[in-house]
Amino acid sequence: MPEKKEPTPRRSAGRGSYAVGDARRRKILDTAVDHFGRWGFHASSLARIANDCGITQGGLLHHFRSKEDLLLSVLGQSEQHDVERLFSVEPESYAAYLETLVALIEENTRRPGIVRMYNVLVGESGNIGHPAHQYFKERYARVLRHTVELLEGAVRRGELRADIDCRAVGQEHLAVMDGLQIQWALDPESMDVPARVRSFLERRYAEMAAPRG
Amino acid sequence: MPEKKEPTPRRSAGRGSYAVGDARRRKILDTAVDHFGRWGFHASSLARIANDCGITQGGLLHHFRSKEDLLLSVLGQSEQHDVERLFSVEPESYAAYLETLVALIEENTRRPGIVRMYNVLVGESGNIGHPAHQYFKERYARVLRHTVELLEGAVRRGELRADIDCRAVGQEHLAVMDGLQIQWALDPESMDVPARVRSFLERRYAEMAAPRG
Repeated sequence: MPEKKEPTPRRSAGRGSYAVGDARRRKILDTAVDHFGRWGFHASSLARIANDCGITQGGLLHHFRSKEDLLLSVLGQSEQHDVERLFSVEPESYAAYLETLVALIEENTRRPGIVRMYNVLVGESGNIGHPAHQYFKERYARVLRHTVELLEGAVRRGELRADIDCRAVGQEHLAVMDGLQIQWALDPESMDVPARVRSFLERRYAEMAAPRG
Repeated sequence: MPEKKEPTPRRSAGRGSYAVGDARRRKILDTAVDHFGRWGFHASSLARIANDCGITQGGLLHHFRSKEDLLLSVLGQSEQHDVERLFSVEPESYAAYLETLVALIEENTRRPGIVRMYNVLVGESGNIGHPAHQYFKERYARVLRHTVELLEGAVRRGELRADIDCRAVGQEHLAVMDGLQIQWALDPESMDVPARVRSFLERRYAEMAAPRG
């Protein structure tokens, strides 16, 4: 459906420019997700990303000062989006947190480009010299710390057994989600990822749940 | 320690050339592991790989006819090595198979370059156009089929319960191993991967084991 061109009054030229700038920035970030996910960081080029956005490399550099800056902006933006959508409210229970993890995986199945980019960049970042190495190392440590805090809280409240190895559980949750999404990216027909993640987490939860009594 | 140059008699010029050719081929493959693992497929270059081997690009093309050919040779060679070392004998039980998986992870901790390459290439291969897409898709299907066969055999022999979802179990085993190795590559200090994989598999095995009668 063609957009209706109604003569909406603009408050000021400045405000209009901001909106245009935001839309362009958004377009660059989306295009970068596609390029990094397809070619990896090293083989992606700012000139080609700019070209796919219909702007010059100089125009792109007005928004992001380097390829490293664009990379870290894409990753930061994507993480912030997830945090705001799913992780901004402290879950009431560990069971509720696991529901949020399944919701994240469900959302990911609707954005395969993000999953592919993530799979590529996290793999590349195993190299110490990679521009996202520190970012991913800290991100995994941060997510793990958060999971461990939630697990410890659930142990204190009597939701979960006291003898669980919280760190090991957190690392395993992350591993299963990452690993299943790798298989799904290779062959989307091979499994229903959210269902598979849910059944793993529910089984694990049943093992960890404190006996009722 | 400098190599001793003892005048060992060569059986024939042909045989000597083969040995030199094999050593050079080996050197190219090892160098390619490093380049693909560091830069990914697309940003790796045959000219730079040849240079790091101290040969010309023409010399390299004598052994591998293209970058795609080199990539698939590296992957095939590495898989064959693992199969010969660890998976050539049919395991006596599903428990024995899990021991072999732990042995594989132990071996991987001694060759971080292979793990990094694997993490990078499997991520990239989520793109349908990637030269290793088909290879990885088939490899995962092959490993999964093998695991399912072993699980079904163990069910028939009464080692494991009849109500397990063999396909789901196999996909989960793979996911945990891949996912933990991603975390380990990012931060080797974060965990003892073989111990973590072992504890996951042992717990899973205990759940699946048929009740002793």
